[in-house]
Amino acid sequence: MTTANAWAAHSAQSPFAHFSFQRRALEPQDVRIDILYCGICHSDVHFARGEWGDPRYPCVPGHEIVGRVSAVGESVTRFQPGDLVGVGCMVDSCGHCPSCGEGLEQYCENGLTGTYMGVEAQTGLPTYGGYSDHIVVRENFVLRINHKPEDLPAVAPLLCAGITMWSPLRHWHAGPGKKVGIVGIGGLGHMGLKLAHALGAHVAAFTRSEGKAGEARKLGADEVILSSDEARMAEHRSSFDLIVSTVSAPQDLDLYSRLLKRDGTLVLVGAGPERHVAPAAGTLIGRRRSIAGSAIGGIAETQEMLDFCAEHGITADIELIPVQQVDDAYTRMLASDVKYRFVIDNASLPTT
Amino acid sequence: MTTANAWAAHSAQSPFAHFSFQRRALEPQDVRIDILYCGICHSDVHFARGEWGDPRYPCVPGHEIVGRVSAVGESVTRFQPGDLVGVGCMVDSCGHCPSCGEGLEQYCENGLTGTYMGVEAQTGLPTYGGYSDHIVVRENFVLRINHKPEDLPAVAPLLCAGITMWSPLRHWHAGPGKKVGIVGIGGLGHMGLKLAHALGAHVAAFTRSEGKAGEARKLGADEVILSSDEARMAEHRSSFDLIVSTVSAPQDLDLYSRLLKRDGTLVLVGAGPERHVAPAAGTLIGRRRSIAGSAIGGIAETQEMLDFCAEHGITADIELIPVQQVDDAYTRMLASDVKYRFVIDNASLPTT
Repeated sequence: MTTANAWAAHSAQSPFAHFSFQRRALEPQDVRIDILYCGICHSDVHFARGEWGDPRYPCVPGHEIVGRVSAVGESVTRFQPGDLVGVGCMVDSCGHCPSCGEGLEQYCENGLTGTYMGVEAQTGLPTYGGYSDHIVVRENFVLRINHKPEDLPAVAPLLCAGITMWSPLRHWHAGPGKKVGIVGIGGLGHMGLKLAHALGAHVAAFTRSEGKAGEARKLGADEVILSSDEARMAEHRSSFDLIVSTVSAPQDLDLYSRLLKRDGTLVLVGAGPERHVAPAAGTLIGRRRSIAGSAIGGIAETQEMLDFCAEHGITADIELIPVQQVDDAYTRMLASDVKYRFVIDNASLPTT
Repeated sequence: MTTANAWAAHSAQSPFAHFSFQRRALEPQDVRIDILYCGICHSDVHFARGEWGDPRYPCVPGHEIVGRVSAVGESVTRFQPGDLVGVGCMVDSCGHCPSCGEGLEQYCENGLTGTYMGVEAQTGLPTYGGYSDHIVVRENFVLRINHKPEDLPAVAPLLCAGITMWSPLRHWHAGPGKKVGIVGIGGLGHMGLKLAHALGAHVAAFTRSEGKAGEARKLGADEVILSSDEARMAEHRSSFDLIVSTVSAPQDLDLYSRLLKRDGTLVLVGAGPERHVAPAAGTLIGRRRSIAGSAIGGIAETQEMLDFCAEHGITADIELIPVQQVDDAYTRMLASDVKYRFVIDNASLPTT
């Protein structure tokens, strides 16, 4: 066992503070990783504040992890100490259900093991996330990172925000000749714009704030559509192959469904506590449109996304902070006051 | 021009009564059909009662037509007098948009021409449907019927109810090894059970009335699930590849979405004036489930369905009535008092 120093929520209300705990001893298939940077995801806030049920405090969020391998178990073949690697939202899955068999571990039918909010099969103990100095993960859930070392902080958000957008873009065939919309320009949405653009699609950003138009274009949008502008929305009726909505606040799904062409799909990747408003059945029926959901991505497609991003020089737009500013970062995130992702510099963690 | 005798709604409130009008003279691509039987669809009621806007009275419903070719235009190559044929919900479409090009005329991007509630491109006059003694239709929208002549009355509902179920079953790959649900056991649903069963799927019927279980099994259901029985519904969680819902009354789409396995689809084929309740976004996201809509079917797939049905001896379960009973049939349909489709014997039409 190794002692980990971490930054933990000790209750739903209290500020984050130092916490130390034991990581499991290396098993034959395990990789030990010194964490260099960890992105801050909205899920971290829900988890740390107990909004998804009792997280068993103290809890350690963080599932956008990049780091360097410090040790490997005896059966590990694909990694060695010194390698730059990443860990996303999952550290394990059953490995034998149909979804795992198809490389879609995120839909594991026996339940994936979250990087936090999970229970380690190896120890029966809670999993602790990336707001910590190191982590032990089975080789199969470790991703290789080929970006330049100076890009590492901005690579971290690819592990959740990036793959959450990449998976639906790929599954529903975003690419040349396709018109793709991204709803919401935040942590997820800004990655959606970059990835859809790099995949060769014609990309439209939907936003409620006119002030974001310039930024959206810089991020990769070919056009920016103010979603409150009914006339502009009507111009785009029946024209989109795919729209990915990152908005979890309740919205009228008919607004975007109407913009899909025949056989087009509106994909939801954000889930809030309240239901959206269903589209009119006739909107779906009239052009065989679909509404779907999509969750992060499998390990193979996460590696594919990382390789694609390294090749195309794609990273997230981030603000790097010391761990001591996590509480403040949460407050600013909830106010949408970040472009576009906070990333923790784990070197700032207390060592005792 | 030829004089047609028909049975028409003369206002939203008045009973149906005799109406005569002119069918266009045969153009080179036209087929003239003596109508033998015409099914009664729920759409007929909405149309005749002005619930979909002013139908321009007197109006003649009917888009489940079977009959015999009486004459053909000079360019017609695929039909000759005496042939048994059918006409469904469409008598024309633009012919050059992407959907028409792919044989999906029901999604014609310039607007299909309804068998009723349309405007003839040839004349600029309203289209009149199958509650009439003959009809003139472009060859491309005429279907060949290979059923035995004595089956003809029960073939009529295949032209709308049948294809409305066939198209989603085929598009979303109902067949051996697939678990398929049909929600609602009425005109559409009973065809769904027969077709899904004949396609080799494992078929479940969802119903709110326990009394329909025996009938549903006879129609092809391998199992019958009472949708109000939460425990039974929960047993089927995450197990369906495809569920086709024929219910247009508002329902909580989460109830059926939860029953889909990963990548499964809930398809809506009925549209009412009120919205359904959207599923929880998390229900869609957790297993990449979809909700879609589907409208009737293209001409090529309608022919495919008719050929399949002739080969497998599939027809609708019907009650044959003279045209004078249409008003009564509408009343009984709205009370779900028919197994499962009324069909008009057009020989009962007045001749003057």
